[in-house]
Amino acid sequence: MEGQALIHRREAITELGDALRTLVEHATTTEAPTGELLRAAAEIRDVIDRLGERVRGHATLSRADDLLGGIRMYNPVIGPGSALAPPLHIEVVDGTAIGRCTLGMAFEGPPMFAHGGVSAMLLDQILGHAVVASGNPGMTVRLDTGYHAPVPLLTPLRLTADVRDVDGRRVTATGVIATEADPGTALVTATGTFVGLRADQVQRLFGQVSAPARP
Amino acid sequence: MEGQALIHRREAITELGDALRTLVEHATTTEAPTGELLRAAAEIRDVIDRLGERVRGHATLSRADDLLGGIRMYNPVIGPGSALAPPLHIEVVDGTAIGRCTLGMAFEGPPMFAHGGVSAMLLDQILGHAVVASGNPGMTVRLDTGYHAPVPLLTPLRLTADVRDVDGRRVTATGVIATEADPGTALVTATGTFVGLRADQVQRLFGQVSAPARP
Repeated sequence: MEGQALIHRREAITELGDALRTLVEHATTTEAPTGELLRAAAEIRDVIDRLGERVRGHATLSRADDLLGGIRMYNPVIGPGSALAPPLHIEVVDGTAIGRCTLGMAFEGPPMFAHGGVSAMLLDQILGHAVVASGNPGMTVRLDTGYHAPVPLLTPLRLTADVRDVDGRRVTATGVIATEADPGTALVTATGTFVGLRADQVQRLFGQVSAPARP
Repeated sequence: MEGQALIHRREAITELGDALRTLVEHATTTEAPTGELLRAAAEIRDVIDRLGERVRGHATLSRADDLLGGIRMYNPVIGPGSALAPPLHIEVVDGTAIGRCTLGMAFEGPPMFAHGGVSAMLLDQILGHAVVASGNPGMTVRLDTGYHAPVPLLTPLRLTADVRDVDGRRVTATGVIATEADPGTALVTATGTFVGLRADQVQRLFGQVSAPARP
């Protein structure tokens, strides 16, 4: 898939992703009558049937993805097509990864605050971006997360991440979650260790992965 | 809300949650024509409109929840009504929290494997259950996660967590992610530190939270 068709497909995936995220949020907060919930479930089953008519296998990349180009439409943290992603928007400026997102009620752990695991997930992703930007991509081998204050929902957040050390294939990065309104107060911090894969490891882990067949 | 009406509502929330999880999974793997994605988005917008007619405020608990009884229908890891939750099913046996789930393609990080942040999220949740079971509930202050091998998707997983130390309000717990097929091989491990809140902290953090008004 390429050119205009690819652009249109990515737009459509994003539009469906936006709709899914809004649906998930409304399903989390709705106090509609119980009968309405059952009706919604039935209508969703109709959509499922049609989307499910043609699905890719688990070792086949999406036609809209560009793995080596870093485009992963369904990544569960940053993917515009993922219902699980806030999504986190990340840009890299002078080696620092800067992320922005607002977490809805669907991400609630303790009442009114984000689930602790959600913060770890956001940090794992943004640390990875800083690591890739340093030219030493790798997989997470350790993520040490410190929770200093609860992360508020429905509040614009600002995340940052930087590489601190590169030792051969081993890269260490640190990151912070704060609010946009008070970026100097760290709510959650993390230190991550990433290790670049050797060619034989890449082959063993991902040798099965294939690009989609051209139609 | 109570009695039969509450039972029915929780069943309906679970049915809608099941439909949402299947929808999210199909939306992640679909290779349906681009026009079908746009049609699905439009149909989902109709469902959103009706669910959105009556929603709770962000400081109001769901009518179907029982906070003190530990029932959180929309928890993003274990909630039967959450589209974000695999969901992880947890039981506590002799103080050990045992969790089971299978992660779909929506949880993919590197091709064919779970996102590292998802593993941290599952572990944060199950460590919390072990901590609560020990009679010393608290909030996560630190979660140190070690990644030993990638976690496969579409594969039954088995998680365990145990409390290792209780020091006043400070509780330490450890947990493991393995597969059901090979429970002795740790894929991801975590050590978490949890601290019980003082009454003044509970009031400061959650004083605003209210139960829903009776209809």
